[in-house]
Amino acid sequence: MKVWITHKEAMRFETGSDMPVTVRMSDPAGLSAGEACGETPKHLFLQSVAGCTGIDVVMVLDKMRVPVPQGFRIEVEAPLTEEHPKVFSSFSLTYLFEGEADPEKIVRAVKLSQEKYCGISAMFRRIAPLSWRVMLNGVEIARGE
Amino acid sequence: MKVWITHKEAMRFETGSDMPVTVRMSDPAGLSAGEACGETPKHLFLQSVAGCTGIDVVMVLDKMRVPVPQGFRIEVEAPLTEEHPKVFSSFSLTYLFEGEADPEKIVRAVKLSQEKYCGISAMFRRIAPLSWRVMLNGVEIARGE
Repeated sequence: MKVWITHKEAMRFETGSDMPVTVRMSDPAGLSAGEACGETPKHLFLQSVAGCTGIDVVMVLDKMRVPVPQGFRIEVEAPLTEEHPKVFSSFSLTYLFEGEADPEKIVRAVKLSQEKYCGISAMFRRIAPLSWRVMLNGVEIARGE
Repeated sequence: MKVWITHKEAMRFETGSDMPVTVRMSDPAGLSAGEACGETPKHLFLQSVAGCTGIDVVMVLDKMRVPVPQGFRIEVEAPLTEEHPKVFSSFSLTYLFEGEADPEKIVRAVKLSQEKYCGISAMFRRIAPLSWRVMLNGVEIARGE
């Protein structure tokens, strides 16, 4: 896999790859208030794990012929260490489903992703401990590491 | 740090965070040809390391009062393993500068990022070996691990 970024100006970059899109990336410290800016690299880094496991969950539900619940969101929380280089010391993923859903099937889809398919979760576990939980209509229905 | 993604439809998600932007993310396997789509999670993951070290380099050059060369691009190449979960087995970063530049100063900026500041490079090294090289106007002027 090959990707690149190109410097635009000040602390701004644009991403590129074999996908026909670009993403803006910047350091907010280098921009004045109100200037349009992109996600920071560390935000993109954390969003990548959510996207990887999110796509798995949709694919597994699809194979089970189970519709994805109307609301599906994944949150990632990760504290940063204070010293340079600043790294994440743990990762907490929360899968939030809202609407009609079969709890067993959505938990099975999340477990298959976390235990078998999600390459970015597997890489994150080499960096720091990773834990996850599944919420359905505001109630926790499963958790794991 | 906290981020989230929200499921849109099929294999498409949108990212969110405390930054005032969203990024579209998708799996191309889930989309027909010609459909607009976003970067894949693994592309974003690799772009995040380029952005992290790229912002360091711009900041260090700025502190040295050295202008960023007119062309500055970072490429990341990383092979994926075949078995699930698919993970990257190495990371190769190439810093490409074009135009007028003091080779010693740009190499110093890259080294400071790789050896001290870049948190995402430090995390990537826990996953797999990371190597880097610096090219100025098409000529390699430094490399490291």
